[in-house]
Amino acid sequence: MSTEVQDFRIGVLGRGTVGGAFAKLVDEHRARIRRITGLNPVVCGVLSRSEGVFEEILAGSDLIVELIGGIEPARAHVLAAMRAGRHVVTANKQLLSQHGDELFQVAGECGVQLRFEGAVAGVVPVVRVLQESLAGARIDRVHGIVNGTTNFILSEMARLGVTFEEALADAQRLGYAEADPSDDVDARDAAAKMAILARLAFGAPVTLEQVRYEGIRQITPHDMEYARELGLGLKLIGTAERIGDGLSVRVHPAFLYPGHPLASVNGPFNAVTVESPEITEITMSGPGAGGPQTATAVLGDVVSAMIPPASAPEELVTLPIIEDIESGFYLHLEVADEPGVLAGVARVLADHGVSVKSVVQKGLSEQARLVMVTHPVLESRFFAAMAQIGQLPVMRRPPRAIRVIEEEF
Amino acid sequence: MSTEVQDFRIGVLGRGTVGGAFAKLVDEHRARIRRITGLNPVVCGVLSRSEGVFEEILAGSDLIVELIGGIEPARAHVLAAMRAGRHVVTANKQLLSQHGDELFQVAGECGVQLRFEGAVAGVVPVVRVLQESLAGARIDRVHGIVNGTTNFILSEMARLGVTFEEALADAQRLGYAEADPSDDVDARDAAAKMAILARLAFGAPVTLEQVRYEGIRQITPHDMEYARELGLGLKLIGTAERIGDGLSVRVHPAFLYPGHPLASVNGPFNAVTVESPEITEITMSGPGAGGPQTATAVLGDVVSAMIPPASAPEELVTLPIIEDIESGFYLHLEVADEPGVLAGVARVLADHGVSVKSVVQKGLSEQARLVMVTHPVLESRFFAAMAQIGQLPVMRRPPRAIRVIEEEF
Repeated sequence: MSTEVQDFRIGVLGRGTVGGAFAKLVDEHRARIRRITGLNPVVCGVLSRSEGVFEEILAGSDLIVELIGGIEPARAHVLAAMRAGRHVVTANKQLLSQHGDELFQVAGECGVQLRFEGAVAGVVPVVRVLQESLAGARIDRVHGIVNGTTNFILSEMARLGVTFEEALADAQRLGYAEADPSDDVDARDAAAKMAILARLAFGAPVTLEQVRYEGIRQITPHDMEYARELGLGLKLIGTAERIGDGLSVRVHPAFLYPGHPLASVNGPFNAVTVESPEITEITMSGPGAGGPQTATAVLGDVVSAMIPPASAPEELVTLPIIEDIESGFYLHLEVADEPGVLAGVARVLADHGVSVKSVVQKGLSEQARLVMVTHPVLESRFFAAMAQIGQLPVMRRPPRAIRVIEEEF
Repeated sequence: MSTEVQDFRIGVLGRGTVGGAFAKLVDEHRARIRRITGLNPVVCGVLSRSEGVFEEILAGSDLIVELIGGIEPARAHVLAAMRAGRHVVTANKQLLSQHGDELFQVAGECGVQLRFEGAVAGVVPVVRVLQESLAGARIDRVHGIVNGTTNFILSEMARLGVTFEEALADAQRLGYAEADPSDDVDARDAAAKMAILARLAFGAPVTLEQVRYEGIRQITPHDMEYARELGLGLKLIGTAERIGDGLSVRVHPAFLYPGHPLASVNGPFNAVTVESPEITEITMSGPGAGGPQTATAVLGDVVSAMIPPASAPEELVTLPIIEDIESGFYLHLEVADEPGVLAGVARVLADHGVSVKSVVQKGLSEQARLVMVTHPVLESRFFAAMAQIGQLPVMRRPPRAIRVIEEEF
């Protein structure tokens, strides 16, 4: 390890769930961040209602993380930090969607970075992609599921056939919806995020007031039922798109055909599809904003702001390469169509500790086939069993195997 | 516009498809990049076999883009550029998977950035996400479809029931596979990419030689048929995962359950899922590497390297907000169960130029329902028609509408 790693001092404004999770992540991942950036990240001060003085934290920091939320005093602190030459990372979507013009202008004048991945889709890297990856692409349209609460409610309505009110109550019980869910279910939250995305995608100053939005309170179980008959899925979709020489930014419930990349995004997830003639389309999906997700997104932004000196891993960890791993297998056997074949194969598998999950057998006399899917098992065991099965006199051809990746539960 | 925008000089090594597309993108998107970075991007020199002198291009550049491919002279030029204090952007996966240790070490020593998004999954931002967004997350596993050629072949085998050889011939005819497809279909290309991803995810020095890989030549139409019966989808999957205190990196065909986020990725696409306890999982998908995609990814890296001065849009473009857009609609009507209802509704729709795509009618006497899906139409027309339908005497309740997002063709 290099002995002269410089500290990079992070001042944190706000001590809520996200602030606590952020400080913990910095501690846990300090070595990795040092490898990536060549600097040592340190939380140098935390401002809360009862603790800390903003001016002192600012003076001792290289970068300010704003997690207070709302407009004031967040706005005043962010402006002061940028005017003092500090990069700022924030997850405050109200502030950005209502005062974006002012904030971006001051950042530009002061030559500092203003990063805000956590303000849109949590750790789903849509800000980074629009602003950096696709800086060299003309973007025609952004479609997004940018509110996890409403996506959870619609998924439950589709899955269980329940009403909006029943699904909302479930969401509240599980912590996916707040006691007053209006901002989410009336789509104001999604509209603020789409205003931010439209600005990034098109470089146009879109404010929340220019976004048309409607929520999901009026959706009924009948809508879901007909949707299923028509082969459609229902989502709350935000859209920002070029139309001729203009722009449309809106949020409303919409049916999606099953081939659409957002159609399969279920539960409290966020996902965004970006369409561009240069690249056709990119889709990104992941969990919506929760405390740990937002803290991870904020730390990702901090790391990006730290990167300038060098993006290179300085020292590498060493992890041994594991050769024998567990996997489920599809086993394809061409066998003689005679009694006892399945029993013989099953006995060999059992002898090696291989457990069978499903079997398809087709008796076509000359070309009988036996196809099995196993539960996960060490590969060495499975291949030993397969080698022995290959020796059985009923085999017409060498057995064949393909791995199966299980659903995670 | 600020009159004192400084030039940022980009030296390009290599003049192939990607190099040509890159220079074109820089020209087309200069204004946008200036807004994002505060600097004016300029291609200051191009090195090809017949043209340019490396030392001169290096001397006049702020950053070097390496698009020569292969090991030498790419390696020598990249090392010389970094030692001269230049950031380097490359899309060269051979170089990175075989000489990663040396390149990263020199980048670290010289305090320059080495960026390589285009080397892995084209414009799908997996490098950026692993290195920056998720710098503060412990990564447990990366699953990827990182070769578009083999994903296209497997998709065609599943869709049409054809053999590997037939699907490969299709891929070659459509330009998705090379005349010698070995690197792709034997999974050596995917293995090199997984070595790079494993290094990023785990900070461990994984080389191509440590990756176990098997390709897709042996897959038969029977495998696809049984997969369908078992409800599985077949993909060539790269995996890099922690197992205890070790690491497994491998590429092989694998069956996926339909709930898996990679199961629905079809055609010549790439997709990567990153699993981490902090964030559950993120999935990113998009087109595999082609000329324009790789050039876009390279330019995205260049923009990221330009960002340090300021990430703020300096000046915004103005685009008018369009209020009346086109959309398909789902129209839900509760009607009297009597003759002529459908004809009456259809006439109103036709009068307003609204064309019907599908109809579901359920005659339940008191509670008869008529549900229609329309082709795309200007919203103002549709809502005018709906208002008039609401006046028809056969309506039992006000009509309801939900937008439908069409498949793109």
